[in-house]
Amino acid sequence: MASIGTVTPQSMHFASALPLRSGASLADYTLVYETYGTLNAARSNAVLVCHALNASHHVAGSYAGNDNGVGWWDNLIGPGKPLDTDRFFVIGVNNPGSCFGSTGPTSPNPGNDGRPYGADFPVVTVEDWVDAQARLMDRLGIEQLAAVIGGSLGGMQALAWTLRFARHVRHCISIASAPNLSAQNIAFNEVARRAIITDPDFHGGHYQQHGAVPRRGLRVARMLGHITYLSDDSMDAKFGRALRQAEPAYSTLDIEFQIESYLRHQADKFSEYFDANTYLLITRALDYFDPAKDAGDDLARAFVPARDNRFLIVSFSTDWRFPPERSREIVKALVDNRIDVSYAEIDAPHGHDAFLLDDARYHGLLRAYFERIAAELPK
Amino acid sequence: MASIGTVTPQSMHFASALPLRSGASLADYTLVYETYGTLNAARSNAVLVCHALNASHHVAGSYAGNDNGVGWWDNLIGPGKPLDTDRFFVIGVNNPGSCFGSTGPTSPNPGNDGRPYGADFPVVTVEDWVDAQARLMDRLGIEQLAAVIGGSLGGMQALAWTLRFARHVRHCISIASAPNLSAQNIAFNEVARRAIITDPDFHGGHYQQHGAVPRRGLRVARMLGHITYLSDDSMDAKFGRALRQAEPAYSTLDIEFQIESYLRHQADKFSEYFDANTYLLITRALDYFDPAKDAGDDLARAFVPARDNRFLIVSFSTDWRFPPERSREIVKALVDNRIDVSYAEIDAPHGHDAFLLDDARYHGLLRAYFERIAAELPK
Repeated sequence: MASIGTVTPQSMHFASALPLRSGASLADYTLVYETYGTLNAARSNAVLVCHALNASHHVAGSYAGNDNGVGWWDNLIGPGKPLDTDRFFVIGVNNPGSCFGSTGPTSPNPGNDGRPYGADFPVVTVEDWVDAQARLMDRLGIEQLAAVIGGSLGGMQALAWTLRFARHVRHCISIASAPNLSAQNIAFNEVARRAIITDPDFHGGHYQQHGAVPRRGLRVARMLGHITYLSDDSMDAKFGRALRQAEPAYSTLDIEFQIESYLRHQADKFSEYFDANTYLLITRALDYFDPAKDAGDDLARAFVPARDNRFLIVSFSTDWRFPPERSREIVKALVDNRIDVSYAEIDAPHGHDAFLLDDARYHGLLRAYFERIAAELPK
Repeated sequence: MASIGTVTPQSMHFASALPLRSGASLADYTLVYETYGTLNAARSNAVLVCHALNASHHVAGSYAGNDNGVGWWDNLIGPGKPLDTDRFFVIGVNNPGSCFGSTGPTSPNPGNDGRPYGADFPVVTVEDWVDAQARLMDRLGIEQLAAVIGGSLGGMQALAWTLRFARHVRHCISIASAPNLSAQNIAFNEVARRAIITDPDFHGGHYQQHGAVPRRGLRVARMLGHITYLSDDSMDAKFGRALRQAEPAYSTLDIEFQIESYLRHQADKFSEYFDANTYLLITRALDYFDPAKDAGDDLARAFVPARDNRFLIVSFSTDWRFPPERSREIVKALVDNRIDVSYAEIDAPHGHDAFLLDDARYHGLLRAYFERIAAELPK
């Protein structure tokens, strides 16, 4: 199975404001996206891929002159791969508020003489992202998606598509996701946000205008996030209690254990490319997502509009961020509506990050499900 | 059952240096401690209580004029309580490196013209603490403790007593503890440490000399710690997804959910009284504790010196910081040595913090165990 090869991001400008759930609106904006494969004549083979916290529209393939920068789901998407670009037209789109090209906090704010939005970028929700994605599908002439797929926060967007635009999507594939965040999930997000906001280089969110970057806060946020993406067992298997050197240095300030070295390295990398305001916005979008709340705290009632959609829900046994119980809540709400749903709980050791990895059972399942979708397409 | 009433801390000065595991040593030092009840004529009814990260020698009772400041284990210790001060002579001692009166980073450093130690306070380990406690027992004329008891990090000290001074203690009661930290445990400690160390007010650990306090880092550390002390379910039961106000404010910077408000309040309180260098030292002591390592990574072999000790090991079903599996590792090592051990896994919803709470089954168990110990005492 080959990679899709060299890809090129595209962008689309939207001149009309996007109304947001908060009551505010986003003035004219740009979305960056990539496509792989070919849209068929019936325009019926499009699959939209929604990204999670730390990812972008760059889902598969690599950019010219940068073979290392393969897309974040390149193991899943490409010719002959489970999501086969010989059969499907795949779209990756960067959400507004992000820091990878679509309009976000680092973009010029037309309401402030073109200075960067910074902390003035409006709060965006999963529903707002789905609305923005729907406008893009409209522009691309895609009346109905064959499927929308995502993991974690991306899985929430996939669910929201069926609640807002049920007739414009056939299949929803929601992986390692949840119907809302638990108090503990929100609490972890809040620790990360406080680390960023209380970094003196944050300047109330207008650090760009001060020529500063709240790297300390971003590093702490990333270290913490990373812990919640991995299982306790996989961290033990990979790092255990191994010291960085043969003998302990007995220091509170220096690196002593290998796990510390790994986390600091991840944190340093992250703080070089990720925008702090985007981190705040995306964790807030996670916090706010709660479709049951709009339906009298009844998740089954929330899914009434999705009665004609078909669902694949996938969870991983060692995911303690969004454990299988949370996916089963979604499955129950679907079953209560007699909605067509397949559910798989994959026994995998890697924790939440498993949705990004190439596990044979997991990818076999997705391959089979996409073959089912492909069978519905015109020959 | 009444509280022990008004208590008064005492202090003991040690003029000879304490050799430390790191190879360094602690110059002359003071330990602050409290005692409750009366030492019997045979000097055989003493019970030592070891404190965890955030606690002190103030285990029971309250100080004159401060009825609110009851000791951290006052629900367990007092006349007629499970650890009955009408029968036992109970000692709480503040460990070196702490910030509640015993010599620690805020104390004058004799090697630096009496300026505060700050980051120059030597790294202390669980074994060093136990050595310091043993010297205090020696001064108090207690040749053999009836029991040593502690929860979490305190439980590690209780275990270490049987490994270092097996003949000077009869019973070891180790609650909500572990034979060492997992990679995930170390990782959480490291995030907290990085938050403190990278706070610009930390000044390399010499913030006192700069008239500063790294409060931002301490707050983040405390928020994070607090999450790991509670179970996911108990956070959901107590806070759930409740908003602070009726409608969402849609803000990344302000408090939105009640769990955020609670964590910030806890963090603010903590940052007012806890010393940042102490936080680093105590989390490092947790990281380093690993008795199996000194015995060829064989925990059973580590417990060979404790063959004549008797143990009570207690864990809590929802404790995900030190889950029951970790306590069962200790139990297995003891059983492999045919050591007398009782083990209880308490079904309690409160997570790690359960060891501090007044759960009927838990306190009933401790009461029964202390009655067994009391039965061995002279009438």
